[in-house]
Amino acid sequence: MPIDIAASFTFSLNGPSDVLLQFEAAAIPEQEVLSCDCTMTEAAHLARIPAQDNIGERIWLRSEGQYQIDYKAQVEVKRLLAEIENLGRLEPHDLPGEAVQYLFDSRYCPADRFQPFVEAEFGHLSGGKRMIAMRDWVSENFAYVPGSSDATTTAADSFIERRGICRDYAHVMITLARASAVPARFVSCYAPGVTPQDFHAVAEVFLADETIPGGGAWHILDATGMADPAETVKIGVGRDAADVSFMTTFGPAMFEGKTVSVQKIG
Amino acid sequence: MPIDIAASFTFSLNGPSDVLLQFEAAAIPEQEVLSCDCTMTEAAHLARIPAQDNIGERIWLRSEGQYQIDYKAQVEVKRLLAEIENLGRLEPHDLPGEAVQYLFDSRYCPADRFQPFVEAEFGHLSGGKRMIAMRDWVSENFAYVPGSSDATTTAADSFIERRGICRDYAHVMITLARASAVPARFVSCYAPGVTPQDFHAVAEVFLADETIPGGGAWHILDATGMADPAETVKIGVGRDAADVSFMTTFGPAMFEGKTVSVQKIG
Amino acid sequence: MPIDIAASFTFSLNGPSDVLLQFEAAAIPEQEVLSCDCTMTEAAHLARIPAQDNIGERIWLRSEGQYQIDYKAQVEVKRLLAEIENLGRLEPHDLPGEAVQYLFDSRYCPADRFQPFVEAEFGHLSGGKRMIAMRDWVSENFAYVPGSSDATTTAADSFIERRGICRDYAHVMITLARASAVPARFVSCYAPGVTPQDFHAVAEVFLADETIPGGGAWHILDATGMADPAETVKIGVGRDAADVSFMTTFGPAMFEGKTVSVQKIG
Amino acid sequence: MPIDIAASFTFSLNGPSDVLLQFEAAAIPEQEVLSCDCTMTEAAHLARIPAQDNIGERIWLRSEGQYQIDYKAQVEVKRLLAEIENLGRLEPHDLPGEAVQYLFDSRYCPADRFQPFVEAEFGHLSGGKRMIAMRDWVSENFAYVPGSSDATTTAADSFIERRGICRDYAHVMITLARASAVPARFVSCYAPGVTPQDFHAVAEVFLADETIPGGGAWHILDATGMADPAETVKIGVGRDAADVSFMTTFGPAMFEGKTVSVQKIG
Repeated sequence: MPIDIAASFTFSLNGPSDVLLQFEAAAIPEQEVLSCDCTMTEAAHLARIPAQDNIGERIWLRSEGQYQIDYKAQVEVKRLLAEIENLGRLEPHDLPGEAVQYLFDSRYCPADRFQPFVEAEFGHLSGGKRMIAMRDWVSENFAYVPGSSDATTTAADSFIERRGICRDYAHVMITLARASAVPARFVSCYAPGVTPQDFHAVAEVFLADETIPGGGAWHILDATGMADPAETVKIGVGRDAADVSFMTTFGPAMFEGKTVSVQKIG
Repeated sequence: MPIDIAASFTFSLNGPSDVLLQFEAAAIPEQEVLSCDCTMTEAAHLARIPAQDNIGERIWLRSEGQYQIDYKAQVEVKRLLAEIENLGRLEPHDLPGEAVQYLFDSRYCPADRFQPFVEAEFGHLSGGKRMIAMRDWVSENFAYVPGSSDATTTAADSFIERRGICRDYAHVMITLARASAVPARFVSCYAPGVTPQDFHAVAEVFLADETIPGGGAWHILDATGMADPAETVKIGVGRDAADVSFMTTFGPAMFEGKTVSVQKIG
Repeated sequence: MPIDIAASFTFSLNGPSDVLLQFEAAAIPEQEVLSCDCTMTEAAHLARIPAQDNIGERIWLRSEGQYQIDYKAQVEVKRLLAEIENLGRLEPHDLPGEAVQYLFDSRYCPADRFQPFVEAEFGHLSGGKRMIAMRDWVSENFAYVPGSSDATTTAADSFIERRGICRDYAHVMITLARASAVPARFVSCYAPGVTPQDFHAVAEVFLADETIPGGGAWHILDATGMADPAETVKIGVGRDAADVSFMTTFGPAMFEGKTVSVQKIG
Repeated sequence: MPIDIAASFTFSLNGPSDVLLQFEAAAIPEQEVLSCDCTMTEAAHLARIPAQDNIGERIWLRSEGQYQIDYKAQVEVKRLLAEIENLGRLEPHDLPGEAVQYLFDSRYCPADRFQPFVEAEFGHLSGGKRMIAMRDWVSENFAYVPGSSDATTTAADSFIERRGICRDYAHVMITLARASAVPARFVSCYAPGVTPQDFHAVAEVFLADETIPGGGAWHILDATGMADPAETVKIGVGRDAADVSFMTTFGPAMFEGKTVSVQKIG
C-alpha cells in the first residue's frame, strides 16, 4: 500500500545565499521510492551530497530572490516490523561502531543527566520493554502544544515543561533511551496520520536482533502516537533536530510558507 | 623528529561493567605510528571498533574490579602545515558531505546563537584570516584555570565566564567557526608542550585548499597556545567533547589516577 | 514640563481568575502625579497593595470574562539629575540594608558569572564612569530587535546573542553593574522617546552621593538610549523583569491588545 | 527545650576586602535568643544592617589577612506549629504585599515553567495537603548526594538530575509551591538533626490561617526530613540561596574551614 507525498515550500533569499535542504524520501532498502518528481526554481548552483548514515541526500543550493520547491513522490514502505517488547538490549560492548555515536549527548539531548531518573522510573524493565515504557511515559505525561517550543528548546526544557511538538517528543524519547545506554537517533519523516499535516519527526532506537548481521537493528518509536512505523517514510536521520532540518539557510532569508500532504493510496 | 608518548590510567569497576576507551594515537596518513605497546588488565570482553570519521579506534571493554592500562607509543607527525592566514573559506555549497555535520550545533557548541557576535567582531575578515583572529581572540580573552569548568560546561558558559581548560578553549573556537559557516571539529590529542602534561584537546577547521581533491582540508587551531600542530598526535575527533572522551563507563566506576608523558625525541 | 500618559489594555479571563497588575505612575517624591484617571471593568475583587521598595502599588484583581483598563495620568518629573560620571562607588561595606538585595543574582541576572569579563573590560574605570562605560558598551554591542527575546531570555542569553528589547538591555546593564558589586535594579516606566510607544524598562544603579543621608542614591541608565531620565515616569522597581510585569495572570487568560501613548506637554 | 549552637569559621582575605555575613540566630518572636556570644577578629570596619524581611541581621566587614569567627548561642524555639495538611491556600488576590515577591521566579527557582507538571502531579490536592504532597514527592524522588550540585545548580537542574543537598531540596520545594501560586521562601537555619552537622536550608510556604491578622502565616517544610520545625533555628530568609549565603566575599578570598554543632539541651 504505497504512500503518496506532496510537499511545497517557498522562501525568499535577500541576496545570493547558500541553502542546505533535506526533504526527499530516502532511497533505502526499507522503503522503495516508486516515483518522484521535484521541481525547483533554477539556481546558480545545485549539488547533491550523501546525508548522515547514507540515509537520503542533502541538497546544496546557491540562489537569490524567491525560490520554490514542489516535491511529489510515491513510496512503498517495506520495513520489517518487530514486536519491540520482545527485543533485547544489546550490551554496550556489543554495539557496532556506527551505533556508538548515538549513545552520546547531543545539542538537544543531554542524556547523561537523566540517568538517576531513568533508573528510578524504568529500572525494573529492560530492552524493548523499557523502550516501550519510555514511549508510553512521554505519551502520557506530555501535551502536544504547537507553538510551545522553539529552535532552542532542549529535551531538558521539554522534560520540565511537559509539552512540545513532534521534535520535542522525539528529543525526550531519545534522551531517555541514551540515558539507558541504548543508541537512539532522530528521524525526519513523512507519515499519513500526522495532524495537521506537516513534516514529522520520530525517534529510532537500536535493539538486539539475532537474525541480523551485527546483531542489532533500528526501530521507530513515536511518542506522539501519530505515525505508524508501517507507513512512515524516512527523509533522513541525525543525532537530533540540529542535524536534519528540512532547510538551513546561510544568509538572510525569509520563509514564506509550506504545504505538506501525505496519504495512503487505496 | 618522533614524539614519545606514555600514558597510564587505573580505574575500578564495582561489578561487571562496560567501558568505552579511546586513548591511542590514530594510525592515519598524517602521522605514522612507529611503535606502540599497550598492556591492559585481562578483560571478559575486548573489541576494537572504528572511531568517528575513521580516525583512530575505540575499544569496548567488559570487566570488573581494578583495571589498568599502560600505553606507550612513538609517533612521527607528517602533517602538511599550511599558512592558515592564506587559506580561503569554502562556500557552504561547496562543502563535501562528510564536512557538513561539523557545521551543526552540538552538545557543547550552540553555534547558531553566536552569529551576531561573530559578524560584529570578525565580519571584516574571511577564511583563514578570520579563523586565526578567532583563535587569537579566545587566547587573549580567556584565562586557563584548571577546575573552573566541569563535564556540563558549554561554550556558551565559557564565553560568559571567560575561563576554562583545553576542552573549553576548543569548544569556544569550534563554536565561533561554525557560527561563520566554517566546519569545525574537536580533536583529542597528545602534544609535548602541554603543561601540566595530560590528554589535550584542540579545534580543527575545514578550509579551502585547491591542491586537494574535494577542495578542502582540516587545520589544527589551539587557542591555549600549548600544542604545536607540527607535534600534535591525534587520538580521535568528534563534534565536541561528548564524542571523544578517553574513557566512558557504563555502570558504577571510580577513576583512580592517570599519568601522561609526551616528549620530543632528540 | 509634565508628561501625559495614556495606556489601555484588554484581556479575557476564561473562568474566574486572579490577576496582578502594576501599570500606574508611582506617587513618589521624584515625580508628582498631577492627575490620574483609571477606568477598569467592574471586578469581583480589587485590592491595592504596596509594591516593591514602596515604589508604586500593585493591584490584585479577581474577575472573569473580558476585562478592560483605561489609564490616563499627568506626571511632573522632579528627579534631581546627577552627572553620573562624577559619582563615586559606595564600598560594599557602606551599603544600606535596603540596597543589599540588589547586589545578588536574580532570575534573569546571573551576575556572579560575569566578574572576569567585567574586570577585563571595565577594570580600569570605577564608580559612575564605569557605569556609563557599561551602558555605552551595551548600547554599541547590542541590536534592538523586537521579537528576538521572550519571557525566558536571561542576561546570559542576551550577552551571547547581542540583541533584545528594553527588558534585555536593562537585564544586561543590571548584570554588569552587580558583577562590579554595584547595586542595580529594574525599573518599569513610561517615557516619551520610546519607539514604538509601549511600556518601557530601564536599569537603575546605586552610587555614592555625599549630600544624601545614607550616602547613596539611585540613578537611571537606559542602554537603549530611548528614555531621558528627566522625562522617565517610574511605575515600579524590582530585581529584574520577574518582579515588575505590568500584568501577571493566575489562571487561563488571553491578552487581547494594548495601546500606550506618552507625550511631553507644551 | 533550648537549642545549643556553636559555629566557627575561618577565611583568609588576600588584601583589604569586603565581606557580607549572615550566620546568627535571628531575634524574632518565634524564637528567643537566650544567650549569644560572638568573637570575631578585629576588623577595619564592621556594621550590622537589617536582613531580608527584617529577619536577622547581616554583617558588613572590611578586613584583610586571616579572619576567624566563633559564634555560640542558646535559642528557645517558640514557633506555633500547625497541622499543615489542614491549612487552606490563600487565594492570590488575598495575599498581603510582603508575600507577593515570593510568588515570582528567582535565580534558582524558575517556577513558571513547572506549572503543567504541578497541575498534572498535584492538581487533585489543594492548600496544605498539596504542599505536604510536594514535600513528600521531593523526599521520595531525590537522593541526598553531597558534592552533586554547586553554586550554579538551579531547581530545574535538580529536577532533572533527581539529587542534591539541602539547598537543592529547598529550591525544588519552593519552585513547586510557587508554580501553584503559593508564596515560598528559602530559610537558612540551624537544626540538631542535620547529618553531618552543618548550616542547613529549608523551604517555607505561606498558607491561610484565620486566627492571624492578614490571614496567613509561613510554615517550614523540609524535604530532606532532617530538620524538625519545632527545633529549627532561623538565621535568615530570601527568595532562594542567592539571598542568604552565610558568607559573600567581594574580592579574592580563600575559605579555610568551618565547624557547626547544634544540640538539644536536656
